[in-house]
Amino acid sequence: MKAVTFQGPGQIRVDSIPEPSVKEPGDAIVRVTMSAICGSDLHLYRGRMTGVEPGIVVGHEYAGVVEEVGKSVRDLRPGDRVVGSFHTACGHCWFCRRGLYSQCQHGALFGFGRRFGDLPGTQAEYARVPHADFTLHKVPADINDARAVFIGDILATAYFAVHRAEVRVGDVVGVIGCGPVGLLVVMCAQASGASRVIAVDVLDSRLDVARRLGAVTVNGRAQDPVRAIRDLTGRRGADAMIEAVGNAESLRLACEAVRGFGTVSAAGVYVEESLPFPAGRAFARDLTVRLGMANVPAQFEAVTELVRHGRIDPAILVSHTLSLGEAAEGYRLFDAGEALKVLLKP
Amino acid sequence: MKAVTFQGPGQIRVDSIPEPSVKEPGDAIVRVTMSAICGSDLHLYRGRMTGVEPGIVVGHEYAGVVEEVGKSVRDLRPGDRVVGSFHTACGHCWFCRRGLYSQCQHGALFGFGRRFGDLPGTQAEYARVPHADFTLHKVPADINDARAVFIGDILATAYFAVHRAEVRVGDVVGVIGCGPVGLLVVMCAQASGASRVIAVDVLDSRLDVARRLGAVTVNGRAQDPVRAIRDLTGRRGADAMIEAVGNAESLRLACEAVRGFGTVSAAGVYVEESLPFPAGRAFARDLTVRLGMANVPAQFEAVTELVRHGRIDPAILVSHTLSLGEAAEGYRLFDAGEALKVLLKP
Amino acid sequence: MKAVTFQGPGQIRVDSIPEPSVKEPGDAIVRVTMSAICGSDLHLYRGRMTGVEPGIVVGHEYAGVVEEVGKSVRDLRPGDRVVGSFHTACGHCWFCRRGLYSQCQHGALFGFGRRFGDLPGTQAEYARVPHADFTLHKVPADINDARAVFIGDILATAYFAVHRAEVRVGDVVGVIGCGPVGLLVVMCAQASGASRVIAVDVLDSRLDVARRLGAVTVNGRAQDPVRAIRDLTGRRGADAMIEAVGNAESLRLACEAVRGFGTVSAAGVYVEESLPFPAGRAFARDLTVRLGMANVPAQFEAVTELVRHGRIDPAILVSHTLSLGEAAEGYRLFDAGEALKVLLKP
Amino acid sequence: MKAVTFQGPGQIRVDSIPEPSVKEPGDAIVRVTMSAICGSDLHLYRGRMTGVEPGIVVGHEYAGVVEEVGKSVRDLRPGDRVVGSFHTACGHCWFCRRGLYSQCQHGALFGFGRRFGDLPGTQAEYARVPHADFTLHKVPADINDARAVFIGDILATAYFAVHRAEVRVGDVVGVIGCGPVGLLVVMCAQASGASRVIAVDVLDSRLDVARRLGAVTVNGRAQDPVRAIRDLTGRRGADAMIEAVGNAESLRLACEAVRGFGTVSAAGVYVEESLPFPAGRAFARDLTVRLGMANVPAQFEAVTELVRHGRIDPAILVSHTLSLGEAAEGYRLFDAGEALKVLLKP
Repeated sequence: MKAVTFQGPGQIRVDSIPEPSVKEPGDAIVRVTMSAICGSDLHLYRGRMTGVEPGIVVGHEYAGVVEEVGKSVRDLRPGDRVVGSFHTACGHCWFCRRGLYSQCQHGALFGFGRRFGDLPGTQAEYARVPHADFTLHKVPADINDARAVFIGDILATAYFAVHRAEVRVGDVVGVIGCGPVGLLVVMCAQASGASRVIAVDVLDSRLDVARRLGAVTVNGRAQDPVRAIRDLTGRRGADAMIEAVGNAESLRLACEAVRGFGTVSAAGVYVEESLPFPAGRAFARDLTVRLGMANVPAQFEAVTELVRHGRIDPAILVSHTLSLGEAAEGYRLFDAGEALKVLLKP
Repeated sequence: MKAVTFQGPGQIRVDSIPEPSVKEPGDAIVRVTMSAICGSDLHLYRGRMTGVEPGIVVGHEYAGVVEEVGKSVRDLRPGDRVVGSFHTACGHCWFCRRGLYSQCQHGALFGFGRRFGDLPGTQAEYARVPHADFTLHKVPADINDARAVFIGDILATAYFAVHRAEVRVGDVVGVIGCGPVGLLVVMCAQASGASRVIAVDVLDSRLDVARRLGAVTVNGRAQDPVRAIRDLTGRRGADAMIEAVGNAESLRLACEAVRGFGTVSAAGVYVEESLPFPAGRAFARDLTVRLGMANVPAQFEAVTELVRHGRIDPAILVSHTLSLGEAAEGYRLFDAGEALKVLLKP
Repeated sequence: MKAVTFQGPGQIRVDSIPEPSVKEPGDAIVRVTMSAICGSDLHLYRGRMTGVEPGIVVGHEYAGVVEEVGKSVRDLRPGDRVVGSFHTACGHCWFCRRGLYSQCQHGALFGFGRRFGDLPGTQAEYARVPHADFTLHKVPADINDARAVFIGDILATAYFAVHRAEVRVGDVVGVIGCGPVGLLVVMCAQASGASRVIAVDVLDSRLDVARRLGAVTVNGRAQDPVRAIRDLTGRRGADAMIEAVGNAESLRLACEAVRGFGTVSAAGVYVEESLPFPAGRAFARDLTVRLGMANVPAQFEAVTELVRHGRIDPAILVSHTLSLGEAAEGYRLFDAGEALKVLLKP
Repeated sequence: MKAVTFQGPGQIRVDSIPEPSVKEPGDAIVRVTMSAICGSDLHLYRGRMTGVEPGIVVGHEYAGVVEEVGKSVRDLRPGDRVVGSFHTACGHCWFCRRGLYSQCQHGALFGFGRRFGDLPGTQAEYARVPHADFTLHKVPADINDARAVFIGDILATAYFAVHRAEVRVGDVVGVIGCGPVGLLVVMCAQASGASRVIAVDVLDSRLDVARRLGAVTVNGRAQDPVRAIRDLTGRRGADAMIEAVGNAESLRLACEAVRGFGTVSAAGVYVEESLPFPAGRAFARDLTVRLGMANVPAQFEAVTELVRHGRIDPAILVSHTLSLGEAAEGYRLFDAGEALKVLLKP
């Protein structure tokens, strides 16, 4: 089968490799009908993740059809349309039993090599999915692949960050960063009852999308975003701030722009062992700060229902739909900022 | 000034009475610019509330302009546009200190006579409002009177019931009854993240409005609503049921149609000392049941922001806007089911 | 093996029957080392549950040792000491996946005959336990059988009722009924941070135990319990009321004695299709009312840790420890009110 | 009157100054009957807080008797025994209305000079207390001054940190630091339902107190505290970690020792604009981190009830009770680590 492989920083290649097969009784084999390139794939592409073995199959955002299931799989059958979580979850460890699947004691990530569980990625024609009962979710017929492919990673990430921001109906929510995740945060915050969403970025093209979604926008190059958010909220700050970039400066801005007793919730990825943190501000303002990796299986149902009934439409973010064979071009476009979201169709 | 008075069951009259004046240091005098007839005014009109003294000024839904304030009022000045809560709240008793204003130990209701605190109603040209700092809320310039008038009672009631139903983003919410409160429940449930709202009534005209708002509708004459809701939810029942009628049968239906561990929240008014309750069902299904009177001052801000930013538009319910002098006709129309919501403009 | 059987109202007999064996891959066979007689066994004994087939093995409170496991059991091995839930839980249905095990779509009760899943009871030398990974919980070596036997039913029931009463640290909690469940409610409320527990009963012998546990006590024959609770709480009522009797009068008392915006949580069993309910009071006071059956598997760990570290000691309730052969005498004693809690040792 | 003044780092002097009088209608004058030296007074004493004006009256932990009240004070009368919050709260700003008093828009701190509102401290014979209705709390007769003096600051701080750690009944709670605040955290965690508290410090004398309170103890000089806590929790980490030191290393330890999806709550004071923070760990483990200043008025009642009914006894921490005139010696003892808690009796 064809599969997208990582050959080194900046080097993506489509190779021909053997199809996967069921190894463990909980596995499913999924024929991938749509995959996508994620911001975290770019980390790999740009060489920011060290120690990843060249040659691995990459990718972790995917939708498809179940081809085969191991004998302990209960809830899935060949022919079921599914979306998959970017992380696996065993379903029976201490954390999984409490619904905290992203902390599964036997969890792995697709497409990031040995350090994350040695699980081949899903930018391929077929994928082996461990613990399929928990890692996969059935997709209703009225959600197409271009929407379903978002459910198992970046839409879940946005939803998770908004959920952990404890947004209450009527709240003002600020978002730092209007990349694909940030724009999905705008949608999720609105679906969660925010009366207003204030979106911050430095690119007008992204702010335009946020504005069309109904957000008030702030260009961080033209205005001090902290001052702008305070001005829009009677000098108090936003009830919740969602950080969708993933660095110290963005986290600091979020802490500055949130009101006393507010919550800062990060949708960004943090890999640094240590980062500067505005502790004095967090103390003086009684802040809550949450970082983390989305708990996808716990959110599959809610996110799917929101997409199904039209409360959220992630497909508006898709700028390019390429064939799997054009993956290298897809990575190039996304890396260069020429694409907002690239889908790869096997 | 002109004021709408209750003269006995079915008898509403517009009288000329003296204007109110500041009696207590926390009072404000409000020039009423819009009032409305509420379903609970109909209870009085229909003679279902006993012991109400003939001659009282009625009404408790109102918006207006502050004319004068007592000397301990801090947050309001003459000229401020305001909406008022149907109940007063002192702001400093044990309950008010905890934000539980509807349980204020010194609270009163407007327009229901001595038993509820002997406070003249607000279907009048002027109203005296005790504890104005807590009982009134400033209205932003971009909300007109036809919207503002909903904020201090029935929209707050709908919001309160949805809030207490603990609706989570993605939930399926059922609503029993599509009168004005039920239709506002539909809007609040959607604003709170419901992926689907299922609305039940027996009048197609009301169900039509619910459908236009985006609800799935069930006519309880044509279908068994419990079966219909179970069929729409994979046999499980709705995650939350809001009861917007206020009787035992409606409460029973809600308990039958909610899923295990779900919440039944009543937006309806209950005055009966004792009512049949499906205890066996509530036990077997681990239900939570909440009844209650809206905690308006605690919700003023959230509800106002939702209206202001267009997340909820209560004005679509207005079927008639009459002059204060036409109040008797307004009551007749509402009582006869010929009006959905009647506003009275002094 | 020996097993306690129901032969009709008032008729309990110890019979010799075949030992159970593994039927389903998720089953475990448990050698019972301690069982107990529950208040709900008395319902059966007193003939209040109709349609139960004579001859069934009764009982559902038990601790023991795993003898054998089916081939899909993951977390248990022969030799493990365990306590079992009074209800089974499959672990993979919609409810179980959300930790709402007491609503398991495939759940059954031990020892109540066909209507509840046709599962033989556990007052026997051996018991077959379906879905053992979720229905059983390992018991640490430092908890003896006389304590462990409480964890799978009445202590879990008390804990569940207190948990659902949303007791906050510093709260005043009232308890109606000081039978074994009510006394465990006293302990759980204290462990949950209640600053004061007010316990109501009509028997001084039970109130003495409550007082020794640290509760303030009210004899409902000597005082009006509602007035007493209001007097003890500055006229406001208790922050939460736990109803541990299971009838309409007790539920009414709890609703009268709780403060505005308080929670009434029932630890009692309700089987009536309909019961009088103080709707007017619940409405006027913004109450939350919760009825339900304990969600044992979700609470196994917390309850076990509380017992293990001495925060709660259920064994003080044990008045009689009999041999399994003396079961009939045990039922007689408990029914006659001569025993507080009877254990049966096979 | 006599008052303790700050004359520069290491220089504490008892001066004779004029008695305070009512300045604002919401003020009360309190005759101080007991004050205490707080860890944050040591910050000042040690010269770590810059820009504090020499000559100011210091101190902010106090209990006393109301001498006089301004004319808008509602809930207090001369003769009332009271404890005071270390911060004032106006009771009517946006934050105070929501019970978030520590973020009061008009708040000030006692005894820290101009930067914090220019409010003379309470280590004096009399103190002027602004916004007395919210800043003071009546003390029941059965709580003596040696206990009451803790309620307005360090016990509230410990309670607040435990509350924000969202401790659930049965949880394992770790505490970094066993100074007075850390030891009160141990008590509050137990009162909140922790099944086990693991206390970490480097001084055996403090660990001895923690052990007498029922905690499991870890000496950070003898053992790696992170490894010790993981070993005690089946390798998972504590459900919640309370940081009671107030520096980056302690915050890092707390983040390392908490389990996935756990909460780190800081009871320590943070004044640094920026501090190293283990962002990668917080991300990978889905952590919640809370820093902040105790919201004393919101907790007055719960904390008072816990002390009153003997659930918590802060007085066991008192190592020295000196006269106000001996304040300089009190500071010296506390600074030198020769005292655990010093009370000053005017």
